Amino acid sequence: MRLLFIGDIVGKPGREIVGAVVPKLRAERGIDFVIANAENAAAGAGITGLIAKTLLESGVDAITLGDHVWDQKGFETDIASLDRVCRPANLPATSPGRDYLIVERNGFRLLVFTVLGRSFMGLKAECPFLCADALLKRLAGQYDGAVIEVHAEATSEKQALGWHLAGRATAVLGTHTHVATADAALLRGHTAFQCDVGMTGPHESVLGREITPVIGRFLDSMPRRCEVAVGDNRLSATLVEFGADGRASGVEWLQVRG
Amino acid sequence: MRLLFIGDIVGKPGREIVGAVVPKLRAERGIDFVIANAENAAAGAGITGLIAKTLLESGVDAITLGDHVWDQKGFETDIASLDRVCRPANLPATSPGRDYLIVERNGFRLLVFTVLGRSFMGLKAECPFLCADALLKRLAGQYDGAVIEVHAEATSEKQALGWHLAGRATAVLGTHTHVATADAALLRGHTAFQCDVGMTGPHESVLGREITPVIGRFLDSMPRRCEVAVGDNRLSATLVEFGADGRASGVEWLQVRG
Amino acid sequence: MRLLFIGDIVGKPGREIVGAVVPKLRAERGIDFVIANAENAAAGAGITGLIAKTLLESGVDAITLGDHVWDQKGFETDIASLDRVCRPANLPATSPGRDYLIVERNGFRLLVFTVLGRSFMGLKAECPFLCADALLKRLAGQYDGAVIEVHAEATSEKQALGWHLAGRATAVLGTHTHVATADAALLRGHTAFQCDVGMTGPHESVLGREITPVIGRFLDSMPRRCEVAVGDNRLSATLVEFGADGRASGVEWLQVRG
Amino acid sequence: MRLLFIGDIVGKPGREIVGAVVPKLRAERGIDFVIANAENAAAGAGITGLIAKTLLESGVDAITLGDHVWDQKGFETDIASLDRVCRPANLPATSPGRDYLIVERNGFRLLVFTVLGRSFMGLKAECPFLCADALLKRLAGQYDGAVIEVHAEATSEKQALGWHLAGRATAVLGTHTHVATADAALLRGHTAFQCDVGMTGPHESVLGREITPVIGRFLDSMPRRCEVAVGDNRLSATLVEFGADGRASGVEWLQVRG
Ligand SMILES: [Fe+2]
Ligand SMILES: [Fe+2]
Ligand SMILES: [Fe+2]
Ligand SMILES: [Fe+2]
Ligand SMILES: [Fe+2]
Ligand SMILES: [Fe+2]
Ligand SMILES: [Fe+2]
Ligand SMILES: [Fe+2]
Repeated sequence: MRLLFIGDIVGKPGREIVGAVVPKLRAERGIDFVIANAENAAAGAGITGLIAKTLLESGVDAITLGDHVWDQKGFETDIASLDRVCRPANLPATSPGRDYLIVERNGFRLLVFTVLGRSFMGLKAECPFLCADALLKRLAGQYDGAVIEVHAEATSEKQALGWHLAGRATAVLGTHTHVATADAALLRGHTAFQCDVGMTGPHESVLGREITPVIGRFLDSMPRRCEVAVGDNRLSATLVEFGADGRASGVEWLQVRG
Repeated sequence: MRLLFIGDIVGKPGREIVGAVVPKLRAERGIDFVIANAENAAAGAGITGLIAKTLLESGVDAITLGDHVWDQKGFETDIASLDRVCRPANLPATSPGRDYLIVERNGFRLLVFTVLGRSFMGLKAECPFLCADALLKRLAGQYDGAVIEVHAEATSEKQALGWHLAGRATAVLGTHTHVATADAALLRGHTAFQCDVGMTGPHESVLGREITPVIGRFLDSMPRRCEVAVGDNRLSATLVEFGADGRASGVEWLQVRG
Repeated sequence: MRLLFIGDIVGKPGREIVGAVVPKLRAERGIDFVIANAENAAAGAGITGLIAKTLLESGVDAITLGDHVWDQKGFETDIASLDRVCRPANLPATSPGRDYLIVERNGFRLLVFTVLGRSFMGLKAECPFLCADALLKRLAGQYDGAVIEVHAEATSEKQALGWHLAGRATAVLGTHTHVATADAALLRGHTAFQCDVGMTGPHESVLGREITPVIGRFLDSMPRRCEVAVGDNRLSATLVEFGADGRASGVEWLQVRG
Repeated sequence: MRLLFIGDIVGKPGREIVGAVVPKLRAERGIDFVIANAENAAAGAGITGLIAKTLLESGVDAITLGDHVWDQKGFETDIASLDRVCRPANLPATSPGRDYLIVERNGFRLLVFTVLGRSFMGLKAECPFLCADALLKRLAGQYDGAVIEVHAEATSEKQALGWHLAGRATAVLGTHTHVATADAALLRGHTAFQCDVGMTGPHESVLGREITPVIGRFLDSMPRRCEVAVGDNRLSATLVEFGADGRASGVEWLQVRG
């Protein structure tokens, strides 16, 4: 079976390339599951209920989110009615929204959840290692394979989580830095791992935003509007091949230009 | 001409693979300049004068360093006599050691310096943007091309520096995260850029260190020794092709297994 | 002579208590100079030109600012025409606004400037130690005494700056944490020092803001409006007594209830 | 009844002043409970079993710790046998050591525990708000009053915890910054609160360490030994008066010179 994991969708360009590319990719590559992190889908910060629905209609099976989960006002209410969207699992237990999803295709039940890292992250979260352990244990028997997204800044935390979960997950895939890493591999032989899947959106940019104002901010420390950029739109994703036993047999990172 | 930039050398495995691989690569790929970040060369933390000399004898033309520059006791004295080693340029002006190097080959003078990022970094440094601007301006006329290493954590800061220096440098190459990024490209047509070149050392590890104790630290927050690992030794480097005008015409990331 | 240094003025309650209390204090305590940090004067975040003028008319001689200096849109323009307002001195050199002020009274020229700390601070700044050294040296002969405000989070950085400047400044006074410290003292015999002067505004609050939403944010990590609070309004200030030689002979922290 | 809470004991000077002053204070002020944070008791970093025993013999009833809890090698083993020492309660559940203590005197059972803040702290910890809530609830009926220590950097987090626990605790007292705050008060009428109790040890120092090397580190970013200082030794503590109902009726900060 095949899973496509799409990295942080940024703004309108990101949404558009998903809509244009995903249906084709599904068909051409025989993809069974499409999961996408959409924490920057609304103007670069957060997501709305409407945007979530549009993405889900364009061929995405499940949407995950990161530290920008609550950036759009009202989404804390909208999320309740979105049954294919999950917020990071290690947020406080009282947080609205699902902390995991189980997506089914041809009888295979794929568990999907996100853990936030705790190094250099603004949003406070519970231990991602223990959170992942607990979810995997609690849901044992309800899933045939698990994709765990590590939404984090520090490569140390991402690699440590990859090794910690190796052998217990189909895939451990990183997001948040918006830059894909060149380390896609199978850990312990059957857990697909990559520190970061990269960003889906305009790449002539700084993390998806206009170059000039971002440089300006670094130069003079003054706030300024940094709009979502437009040039060099690309979809970044990781394709994982796995068997009925939930073990990955292949992992390939791909980038499709708009 | 060709430049090979080697990412963070970690411990004895890292030094050994440099010694084994670099001479061969130089010959096979017709490399003119070899620059290596060696901030983790001594047992994973810092470098000594002796190690620097050994690396320089094994085919490395210039050594750069990062936030771990002063980890080894005595190196603040040793560095004075090492004329092919530079410490980050945006450290305080009173810091020992060279803040840049000019390496010459066949009449081409290559300027090399490192700037430390300021996001999520323990070591305090002056503005890397202004530091790079000032050095390029001050040394104008003394170099034919410049390689600027961005030793930083945040992808935003690295990309912003890349765009800021694009058109003025032969290459802007990132280090520090120990994980190579999949974004090697020519910015503005002739500045080679990559967010991170990756690590040179044992890859069955967390950033070059043993997996089990690092996971342990994340799990219980207790300190423990995390030795340099041993398995899956690799050299990570970026190869930049450039002309006599200092403009890059090609960039390729490569990883060589030990 | 006597200097009153007023800590971070927060919102309308803060501005009102300054207007109500400062004229009386000036008269009763024979105060010669009144300096106030007003980085939170506009609705808790930043300051406007209009608010600055109102404060200056209510008996404040000089206004300083901190990391919130640019929070109000347009202030980066307004600041140019405000000749008794200075922004932190260790911001980039190209920043708008004065980096120091010299206030004169009865022939005594008091130098006033602020340095931002670099530990745990969002705004990037140059080294506060070197910045203070440089300003004191560059302006030598133009002032009879110097008040250096350390706008910083970490007590280590504030104490270190206090000792570093002891003997060279009339006073080194901290701001930013919004909580006064109980350590007002004369360092090396004649430099008044206090880690933090505390906040001027509503004290039935968290740092001047409404209690309930702030606790809510800590509990669930979700954003919410945290308005300036209203209850228990107080002015926090430090009174420094000093001679014509610029040496402090007394330091007293005081808090006046509204 | 009366409780004396002693702030971070630093090194030998800190231990000595505790030994010299506490027995006298107990007698003179009629103190029933003495609690002391001793996270810096061993050479400024951590504590040993032997030091803990000595402190407990010198009139301290209970010892608390902070982010430096595991700095001394072997203490993770020693702590098991120390029945009047607790480590921060919001460390991972698997951590060695007690997460709370109940100290009894004249039939009054005083619950004592520490929570670590999560803003600007190196050690990762679970949510201090939820941790405190859970402990208070779980132990309900087993204590007559509770002293909750907030070992944290950010004043916002400390104040928010103070208000959150006001009415449910006898006292909420801060430690970690090593500088006492001037805000000792009764919140909601009967919970004693102070952002920081301050340090017990040499005050001619930076947070208890020698001034010159610490300034040196800020100036050049180079590591150097920063020994525990010697001059101006003081004990910093907060005295809380409370009734049999566990409600505080008075709070007074005091500093005793050696
Ligand atoms: Fe993110
Ligand atoms: Fe993102
Ligand atoms: Fe580094
Ligand atoms: Fe490194
Ligand atoms: Fe501030
Ligand atoms: Fe403030
Ligand atoms: Fe601490
Ligand atoms: Fe401490």
